[in-house]
Amino acid sequence: MTHRQATFIDAPRLAQFLGVQVLLASETFQYTGSFKFRAAFHLASTVKQKLVITASSGNFGQALAYACSLLGKSCIIVMPTTSVKVKVDAVRAFGGQVDFVDVQVKSRAERVAELAEQHREAYIASAYDDPLVIEGNSSLGREIAAFTPAFDTIITPVGGGGLISGVITGVEQSKAAIEVIGSEPLIGNDAARSLRAGELIRNDAEPQTIADGARPISLGKHNWEIIRSAKPKMIEVREETITEGVRLLFDKANLKVEPTGALSIAALMQAREELAGKRICCIASGGNVDALLYSRILAGEL
Amino acid sequence: MTHRQATFIDAPRLAQFLGVQVLLASETFQYTGSFKFRAAFHLASTVKQKLVITASSGNFGQALAYACSLLGKSCIIVMPTTSVKVKVDAVRAFGGQVDFVDVQVKSRAERVAELAEQHREAYIASAYDDPLVIEGNSSLGREIAAFTPAFDTIITPVGGGGLISGVITGVEQSKAAIEVIGSEPLIGNDAARSLRAGELIRNDAEPQTIADGARPISLGKHNWEIIRSAKPKMIEVREETITEGVRLLFDKANLKVEPTGALSIAALMQAREELAGKRICCIASGGNVDALLYSRILAGEL
Repeated sequence: MTHRQATFIDAPRLAQFLGVQVLLASETFQYTGSFKFRAAFHLASTVKQKLVITASSGNFGQALAYACSLLGKSCIIVMPTTSVKVKVDAVRAFGGQVDFVDVQVKSRAERVAELAEQHREAYIASAYDDPLVIEGNSSLGREIAAFTPAFDTIITPVGGGGLISGVITGVEQSKAAIEVIGSEPLIGNDAARSLRAGELIRNDAEPQTIADGARPISLGKHNWEIIRSAKPKMIEVREETITEGVRLLFDKANLKVEPTGALSIAALMQAREELAGKRICCIASGGNVDALLYSRILAGEL
Repeated sequence: MTHRQATFIDAPRLAQFLGVQVLLASETFQYTGSFKFRAAFHLASTVKQKLVITASSGNFGQALAYACSLLGKSCIIVMPTTSVKVKVDAVRAFGGQVDFVDVQVKSRAERVAELAEQHREAYIASAYDDPLVIEGNSSLGREIAAFTPAFDTIITPVGGGGLISGVITGVEQSKAAIEVIGSEPLIGNDAARSLRAGELIRNDAEPQTIADGARPISLGKHNWEIIRSAKPKMIEVREETITEGVRLLFDKANLKVEPTGALSIAALMQAREELAGKRICCIASGGNVDALLYSRILAGEL
């Protein structure tokens, strides 16, 4: 087996409400619930090492644990002691070994470096800044490029840049004439600022956006090379539009997404006038969200 | 265009949690959010009448309104004055004409009869008890029967019986050796009681199950003919298991379902020991649920 193909959802109630031609390419039903499984499985099946170590408090850890379990490999996932129990449990349910780090005392990167020293036989994986991650995610770009009738535009969430660089790569491999647009939280708009400046810019601190998949301090270096070259248009999305996007997908498409997974539809809500007439694919990147947080979003409290 | 194919979801976290081989066949992404669009579109495209009248406070009304809009036909949907606004709005958004009836004064059936008298040119449709509805729903049975590797068992919700009779019909048309099992709320178990008695039994009143798609007072007559002949095993599901099923699909499969859409997984939760070793397909029949009700279910209040 490999990854699951993207689930394309043609939601007439959503398109009618927004007044645009939009389909969703959902990764919420990807194995482990987010696009991260593509990269994790590609990486774990490509490297020759039997042990993979990474730092992830979220979707990549779970994806890597499941990929390694399928491949008969082992993994150590470095997680902050403050990680929510459901995410720790998910890694463990797939046989991943959780290594806790108190980030007040030591950074995740320092802990990974210590583990790398102890396990010299291991492959040290980044959740986004690794050519194998980009190549793994590129399959999503190829799947969207193969969809008929063809799209004019793909909108994809941007966090560390692993997804957008993969999608750009996949679309280029398919030789498809599809514009790729990035959607980024306004309060963590380092990718947009990097593109404006022509150099990789870091946020001062981890941005406290509700889209927790978009909290990396900056784009990864491998991702930035691809993004700098492709120069995608970026849409900077307000926090309240992200939660509105979660509610809109619930109401009009029956789709449960995590806040990061609503970034694309939120970007479309903000920019629908300039995108009118285009055939648009919005990537819903993942669906793993805590029930309490989700309920608060549905209730309009967030 | 016709209906959307069922969305098959292989959710490893769900299967692992339940300890069974289960896939979901989701109709939550069917146009208008439930399987009802299959029947509505088949019916509206088959009858020669240009006007269709039905009584529906739920998914069939919305499905028929959208089907008629696609086909250039008109429809009148009789709805109780107490219908929730979101359902009324959904019918109207697709160009359906809503006809309100105060069910304290007049039954829905009486109002439909009045309208039929006024509009002798119209086709009067039942949401479930019509051979065209059964034939429309049969496509879901054929799609599940065509899935490889083949299933041993399909579990499907049972309300008025339109879905299960369609699935049985579709599986028979496919000549597939797949057992079809029905899932019904225990507090509205007229189908199970009818099968035990060998005759069509009605509930004393509309059962107040949270699975509002399973509230019809009895199976339809056309459906009962098929069900009586096929004698499917029925699983009678407790109310708290239905809401537990909604939460389980949220947590382990990222799938938003309405309570009726969780009947199959709830049945599997109740009967998983006797179904162990089988390759099971659970039909998630629809996803249209009010945000407030859904939040209360997620919070464990229901």
